[in-house]
Amino acid sequence: MKVTVNGETREMRALWMEGEIIKFIDQRVLPERIEIFQARDYNDVAFAIKDMVVRGAPAIGVSAAYGIAQAYMQGRDLKRVADILSKTRPTAYDLFYAIRYMMDRIERGDDPIRAAEDYANDIVERSRKIGEYGNKLIKNGSRILTHCNAGALAVLDWGTALAPMRMAKREGKDIFVWVDETRPRLQGAKLTSWELKNEGIRHKIIADNAAGLLMKRGEVDLIIVGADRIALNGGFANKIGTYEKAVLAKTHGIPFYVAAPFSTIDRGIRNEDMIPIEERSQDEVLYAGKCRIAPDGVEAYNPAFDVTPPDYVEGFITEYGILRPDEIEKRFSP
Amino acid sequence: MKVTVNGETREMRALWMEGEIIKFIDQRVLPERIEIFQARDYNDVAFAIKDMVVRGAPAIGVSAAYGIAQAYMQGRDLKRVADILSKTRPTAYDLFYAIRYMMDRIERGDDPIRAAEDYANDIVERSRKIGEYGNKLIKNGSRILTHCNAGALAVLDWGTALAPMRMAKREGKDIFVWVDETRPRLQGAKLTSWELKNEGIRHKIIADNAAGLLMKRGEVDLIIVGADRIALNGGFANKIGTYEKAVLAKTHGIPFYVAAPFSTIDRGIRNEDMIPIEERSQDEVLYAGKCRIAPDGVEAYNPAFDVTPPDYVEGFITEYGILRPDEIEKRFSP
Repeated sequence: MKVTVNGETREMRALWMEGEIIKFIDQRVLPERIEIFQARDYNDVAFAIKDMVVRGAPAIGVSAAYGIAQAYMQGRDLKRVADILSKTRPTAYDLFYAIRYMMDRIERGDDPIRAAEDYANDIVERSRKIGEYGNKLIKNGSRILTHCNAGALAVLDWGTALAPMRMAKREGKDIFVWVDETRPRLQGAKLTSWELKNEGIRHKIIADNAAGLLMKRGEVDLIIVGADRIALNGGFANKIGTYEKAVLAKTHGIPFYVAAPFSTIDRGIRNEDMIPIEERSQDEVLYAGKCRIAPDGVEAYNPAFDVTPPDYVEGFITEYGILRPDEIEKRFSP
Repeated sequence: MKVTVNGETREMRALWMEGEIIKFIDQRVLPERIEIFQARDYNDVAFAIKDMVVRGAPAIGVSAAYGIAQAYMQGRDLKRVADILSKTRPTAYDLFYAIRYMMDRIERGDDPIRAAEDYANDIVERSRKIGEYGNKLIKNGSRILTHCNAGALAVLDWGTALAPMRMAKREGKDIFVWVDETRPRLQGAKLTSWELKNEGIRHKIIADNAAGLLMKRGEVDLIIVGADRIALNGGFANKIGTYEKAVLAKTHGIPFYVAAPFSTIDRGIRNEDMIPIEERSQDEVLYAGKCRIAPDGVEAYNPAFDVTPPDYVEGFITEYGILRPDEIEKRFSP
């Protein structure tokens, strides 16, 4: 992705490995400043995932892959590291997929560092293909709504939901994006807006509450979101609030697409209601930055994800093309 | 309403008049601290409405009524003051209703100060009746969801949406309230939560995005919201995000009620799409408190209200009982 640092624009990935160190663009401090978080061992990697230095299902997967390569270089017990990393966050499936990928490659005798770089380059290529397939859905003049950040920061480069928009822009299409701010952590306002600005894509941030009004007024042509885990039936989990947008899209006849690589599909889960939903700290709701926004002593409830049944999904934009929800099951059923 | 100041609980209204001064609980600084804003002339009253020292359709109406009484005491041109006050905010109908009420009473030769106090006492009595009628919908153990603040702060006392909950609690029912935080201005997290805490009503604050998940899981029995303007067809305008909750409520078969006095019904507007929608400053979205949450140079779109068609409304809880949407039209049609 294009990142402008001190007036100079260059290509960067959301995370990468230099020697034994895994470097992350620290997503906790964007867009205010660009800081690099350095993970020197598996504890740092686990912290980076838990504390959301890095987030987004595919990027979490890459973090785990690099984390295992790093542990190998440092002579750690790989099974123990894999176990620790797998317990950092419960919902994003790519985390478990990447760990299994790494352990399989290592079992086969492959070099773990090479395996992790393969995984990283592969996910970039998959997201580029998602961009190509998704671009076909975007017309010149399309007004697209997205929720949370399913961009290059959530993958490594390109993104999932944002990949088609990047591709459309680079092809010269004039597009406009409505960016849900995405409370409580504001990944839309902070991260998606930052990526779209860097890419020169026209957009406006809205309170999550405003999406329904825009759909009712006919100001949204297309919705594309990412996914944290996709079940075999074509239901999926994504950032809290996604389900609300899906229901509203159906009410208004607006096509609702989910962009995700196959590494987000969990063959072991039949339907979306079986996907474990992470509950995060109440403070993400009770505070805005360092300011408490609620009275002392009151409580919040903070589920980080929700689930959307398959009948709300027009299609999954994957690296193998656009699949209807029922085609997910067909691809993986024995 | 019960307000605890320095450990001492007492009864207060959201605003009142002392001599020529109109005093408001300053809703911009709640729940952090309780400050009284003093409006010494009509300019102060106009500022208090525009800047949301006071908000909520019925309370805006009372502010205008007191503002006209104050202008009379100060020997101002009442028509000019009425005109200035009527241009403070465009959506809440009670503002126009209260101004007309005052001008009619003055034309009939009534004392304006007496008329304003009548208006204020009347709205409190109406909201108490809304509480009584609405209380019939609430069962012991009910889990109720509300959006924004349609409480005593938005009326003077009791509230509209919160009046039934107050009544249920005082009758000894065990109830629980899901409080939408209500971005961008967070009236749910800041004001509704403060009122419910003062009243001892169990509740949790949620990001607006989480309401859909809770409805899907069957954790919401009933939804009650307020209204800023009701059209003759039974459609209505309310805080941005209300429409999203109404659509989700219908999807999940959850009864969705609107609590409002008749002063919120605009007989001059046939359907909800004709209601003027206020657009407020982008900064309400781009900043959380004093911190900018978005990259420099990007824009937001900030409609303050949305509109909900009548087919999403189970009933209007009014001072004259609970009306179906089609009964609004029957009450007022010539």
